[in-house]
Amino acid sequence: MNAGYATEQLESLLAAASADTEKGKVASYIPELAKEDPRQLGVSVCMPDGSILSAGDADTPFTLQSISKIFTLILALCQNGQQYVFERVGKEPTGDPFNSIIKLETIKPHKPLNPMINAGAIAVAGMIQGKSVEDRLNGLLDMLRKMTGNPDIRINEAVYGSEKKTAARNRALAWFLKDSGVLDGDVEETLDLYFRHCAIEVTTKEVAKLGMVLAADGIDVVTGERIFPEEVARICKTFMVTCGMYNASGEFAIDVGIPAKSGVAGGIMATVPKRMGIGVFGPALDEKGNSVAGVKLLELLAKEWKLGIF
Amino acid sequence: MNAGYATEQLESLLAAASADTEKGKVASYIPELAKEDPRQLGVSVCMPDGSILSAGDADTPFTLQSISKIFTLILALCQNGQQYVFERVGKEPTGDPFNSIIKLETIKPHKPLNPMINAGAIAVAGMIQGKSVEDRLNGLLDMLRKMTGNPDIRINEAVYGSEKKTAARNRALAWFLKDSGVLDGDVEETLDLYFRHCAIEVTTKEVAKLGMVLAADGIDVVTGERIFPEEVARICKTFMVTCGMYNASGEFAIDVGIPAKSGVAGGIMATVPKRMGIGVFGPALDEKGNSVAGVKLLELLAKEWKLGIF
Amino acid sequence: MNAGYATEQLESLLAAASADTEKGKVASYIPELAKEDPRQLGVSVCMPDGSILSAGDADTPFTLQSISKIFTLILALCQNGQQYVFERVGKEPTGDPFNSIIKLETIKPHKPLNPMINAGAIAVAGMIQGKSVEDRLNGLLDMLRKMTGNPDIRINEAVYGSEKKTAARNRALAWFLKDSGVLDGDVEETLDLYFRHCAIEVTTKEVAKLGMVLAADGIDVVTGERIFPEEVARICKTFMVTCGMYNASGEFAIDVGIPAKSGVAGGIMATVPKRMGIGVFGPALDEKGNSVAGVKLLELLAKEWKLGIF
Amino acid sequence: MNAGYATEQLESLLAAASADTEKGKVASYIPELAKEDPRQLGVSVCMPDGSILSAGDADTPFTLQSISKIFTLILALCQNGQQYVFERVGKEPTGDPFNSIIKLETIKPHKPLNPMINAGAIAVAGMIQGKSVEDRLNGLLDMLRKMTGNPDIRINEAVYGSEKKTAARNRALAWFLKDSGVLDGDVEETLDLYFRHCAIEVTTKEVAKLGMVLAADGIDVVTGERIFPEEVARICKTFMVTCGMYNASGEFAIDVGIPAKSGVAGGIMATVPKRMGIGVFGPALDEKGNSVAGVKLLELLAKEWKLGIF
Repeated sequence: MNAGYATEQLESLLAAASADTEKGKVASYIPELAKEDPRQLGVSVCMPDGSILSAGDADTPFTLQSISKIFTLILALCQNGQQYVFERVGKEPTGDPFNSIIKLETIKPHKPLNPMINAGAIAVAGMIQGKSVEDRLNGLLDMLRKMTGNPDIRINEAVYGSEKKTAARNRALAWFLKDSGVLDGDVEETLDLYFRHCAIEVTTKEVAKLGMVLAADGIDVVTGERIFPEEVARICKTFMVTCGMYNASGEFAIDVGIPAKSGVAGGIMATVPKRMGIGVFGPALDEKGNSVAGVKLLELLAKEWKLGIF
Repeated sequence: MNAGYATEQLESLLAAASADTEKGKVASYIPELAKEDPRQLGVSVCMPDGSILSAGDADTPFTLQSISKIFTLILALCQNGQQYVFERVGKEPTGDPFNSIIKLETIKPHKPLNPMINAGAIAVAGMIQGKSVEDRLNGLLDMLRKMTGNPDIRINEAVYGSEKKTAARNRALAWFLKDSGVLDGDVEETLDLYFRHCAIEVTTKEVAKLGMVLAADGIDVVTGERIFPEEVARICKTFMVTCGMYNASGEFAIDVGIPAKSGVAGGIMATVPKRMGIGVFGPALDEKGNSVAGVKLLELLAKEWKLGIF
Repeated sequence: MNAGYATEQLESLLAAASADTEKGKVASYIPELAKEDPRQLGVSVCMPDGSILSAGDADTPFTLQSISKIFTLILALCQNGQQYVFERVGKEPTGDPFNSIIKLETIKPHKPLNPMINAGAIAVAGMIQGKSVEDRLNGLLDMLRKMTGNPDIRINEAVYGSEKKTAARNRALAWFLKDSGVLDGDVEETLDLYFRHCAIEVTTKEVAKLGMVLAADGIDVVTGERIFPEEVARICKTFMVTCGMYNASGEFAIDVGIPAKSGVAGGIMATVPKRMGIGVFGPALDEKGNSVAGVKLLELLAKEWKLGIF
Repeated sequence: MNAGYATEQLESLLAAASADTEKGKVASYIPELAKEDPRQLGVSVCMPDGSILSAGDADTPFTLQSISKIFTLILALCQNGQQYVFERVGKEPTGDPFNSIIKLETIKPHKPLNPMINAGAIAVAGMIQGKSVEDRLNGLLDMLRKMTGNPDIRINEAVYGSEKKTAARNRALAWFLKDSGVLDGDVEETLDLYFRHCAIEVTTKEVAKLGMVLAADGIDVVTGERIFPEEVARICKTFMVTCGMYNASGEFAIDVGIPAKSGVAGGIMATVPKRMGIGVFGPALDEKGNSVAGVKLLELLAKEWKLGIF
């Protein structure tokens, strides 16, 4: 793939997808996110040689939000092993909205169906080890800094504060998990860690790099260093297919066919096995919480470059 | 009804119902309640002249638990009026366990179906007015002290502490209500008030007096003083029939037919319109949370004295 | 109660309630019912001496629809006894719409929560004994003819046909019950019986008489004959309070406080213990399926004549 | 892959997986299926050149059951196009058991979440065109005969009869769909077609061939003929990943990682893009309805031959 030609294609597809920004709305339940300009759209692609192609608002910082669920899961798997993790959180897609509480009560034993819904991700956050919230947070930041090669990755404090203040539903989920014995330790500390994970700030370039590490089965293609085991990468890519795009994951798998994880700040991390990592940013969301123009752009890219895995 | 003969009947029926204590278990999820001797059974009946008949463990102190939901509702209705209260909590029985969270998500608009399930009672606790939790609590204690003629009614601090510590599910309910906009104000303060209401300590004699005030449509039969409006008494008696005995209310209405409210410490307050208030204490519970021998005793009493309202 | 004065009151309250007919709509899912004039409103009251007072459209024929659930239950209890019946159908209100299927799957063991929701009433219809559908139907018709003193009570064939044709949801419920082992025998035959029960044609005068038999604990006040045991009457009146008005039963119990059963043709049968039976007809329904002006009229009557049981 | 060596591997892995047959039970709700010997286990692999390797009970006939859902979907997509099909059935996994009815009521608009659960497959069966049930069935049989090169593929009449007789839950689903407007046409005819699809008899060799056509994107590798469009193959393979293994699909995707569809007769069809089709038969099922030893065998094969797509 010629970099110049590919960038032209990126720009042309981004222009085509841009119209769809009008079909969505920025997340309103977190006040800080509601301030974003819904017309933004940016994309970066990281290649196996570490080179990056970009188009549009590729350098605008945004927060990971649910994209962080993948990395919390990676860390939890590395620290605790599969058995421990999957005794406390399941592997099944749900068909329910990301913040639904119903299945926590109806499923016996009470455990979140998967680590990509909020309940599951809170349970996974509870598994992250460390002496303090700060310490537990640094484990994740360190991993992300290494994967992106950017030592300055940090929390957006305004978003974190906004998130923490408006997190009643997540608190309900966490306390339900506590009641069910899924969550050990201090609930407020785990929620605090979860909110901070969500508020980690990145650009599409960094997200593309993160996606490339997954595409390379856990290896940093720039340094050649293995960041996490191949097995962990495989698990994450599978979850990205079955439940990475909230309760539109099935539709996305059919229409686009690339493992991907979205966040309500408008980010999407996609990973094309062996071939590339893709970072998208488009804060106008559809009613299920996915970047509406971001999904369109990935669909166009998947068609143009034949990226689908099915 | 001759008092001596009636007391003999009480004793005889209590003896008959006592065997059923073996069919239940004391509440285990609140450690302090788990300490109770499951074989206890006591009853008191308050007559329209204020006289009280008793049998068995009538003087053993226990905590109101869910029986308090009736009095929180009375206070909330007196302070805020029907319209305010019922905009935030419904009037329908649910068929679900008392601590279920499912319908909070499935019913639109999200509001608890009635004030007798935990979610509804927490919402009602949030409506109690006052400058502080202490102040808000005192409103209820004052009313109960007046109704029972016992100025010493107070919180059982050990139960309150135990309750507060093990209240993860109630915290989940409260935060869900906060998220839905049903609960204004500080969630932890409202929960604190709710836990204190549950931990108010009484005996069957006091519960019988409380039931008699409801039977007399809000009037204290000893002093002749009106404690709350007739309309409020009517509303409470109706809720006691449709949802006073958790998700066994329909069965109790058919088998016993007296307005009643139970609590997981083993208490039941029953109210026979115009005729009597009844307080029962039997800490061995059935799987739905009602005193198993207490229900039996009320069934026997209802048959013997023809107390059913249907 | 002076008959002339009482009739004047009836007419005046009916006039007041009439305005509410505009707030509802006739049932549209059964084409034959959709033909009714929504502005109709009629009422009859049957007194303990068998005399009847009426106002408005008291002589307009309409079909029992869900009001028949009470009489199918009476017959099933008389033929099979309480134990048999309540092993197959519960006693609890549900909080769900009358045609909901969810709890059939979520409740273990799978049995309908009560006999007033469609699933429960279909299960009860399956218990009615007889050699053929015709034979099983005649048992109910005979009982209703005796109770009303009208030997001509019969099925409205057009409504029956319309009902049978548009009954997909009821078929779903019946087959689910079959799958759960609640329903023995032929499903289509039981459904056929159920549809015929729903299509029995009456006027408010007959419904008032039916309500009076329940008010008199199972005795026909005209002939003095006992039609069914007191125990059965008590059970039915209790169900009328806890689940007689669909998922507005709790609200009706608080606002009106009279045991009552409604049907989607616009009928309501109310029964004031010892005092009177009331038949109402007003085909404009609220969104839960109750006659909107009929409920209003009962509320006014209950206030004026102090009919509430709470 | 050397055929002899590969067959040896197949046999060795099959022997290893065989122990797991003891962990499951044959389907009991369809009497004909309950007669199977639970210790059976067979496998066939079809290669891109059309050659077939086998081990164990590879030639035992069994019925497709839910595996047929894939081919009904292929036919429905070919006959009606994506838009028509997906307006009536969704693309999302559910997390619920295959015969669950709950989401049909809770999801608005009421439509089955995907074509792999029973409700969805019945809806898809309703889309198959033809003048009669016989005619509609022949469309599917013709396609399967062509794909397998076996002109004798037919219905197992005993299983079909058994299935039809014990299909109360499927009837409930179908009538609910009728009520929701998802199912046009005659319900009993559509159910009849659905039961016949389920009762189509095959061996693992034929299932392996069917899987190879999907692996070859719709092309019969023996004749070179295109049977259905690439797009349709892609859609089916995606559904096989997200919801092919009932509510264990997510777990299977992680543990095995091959698109697959199972049936309650113990069959599994797996498809490794470009590389092979696999047919498995092992009638001992786990509690979710998947062949317990069949899943184990696919897991071992996926590890040995590196077949996972993630």
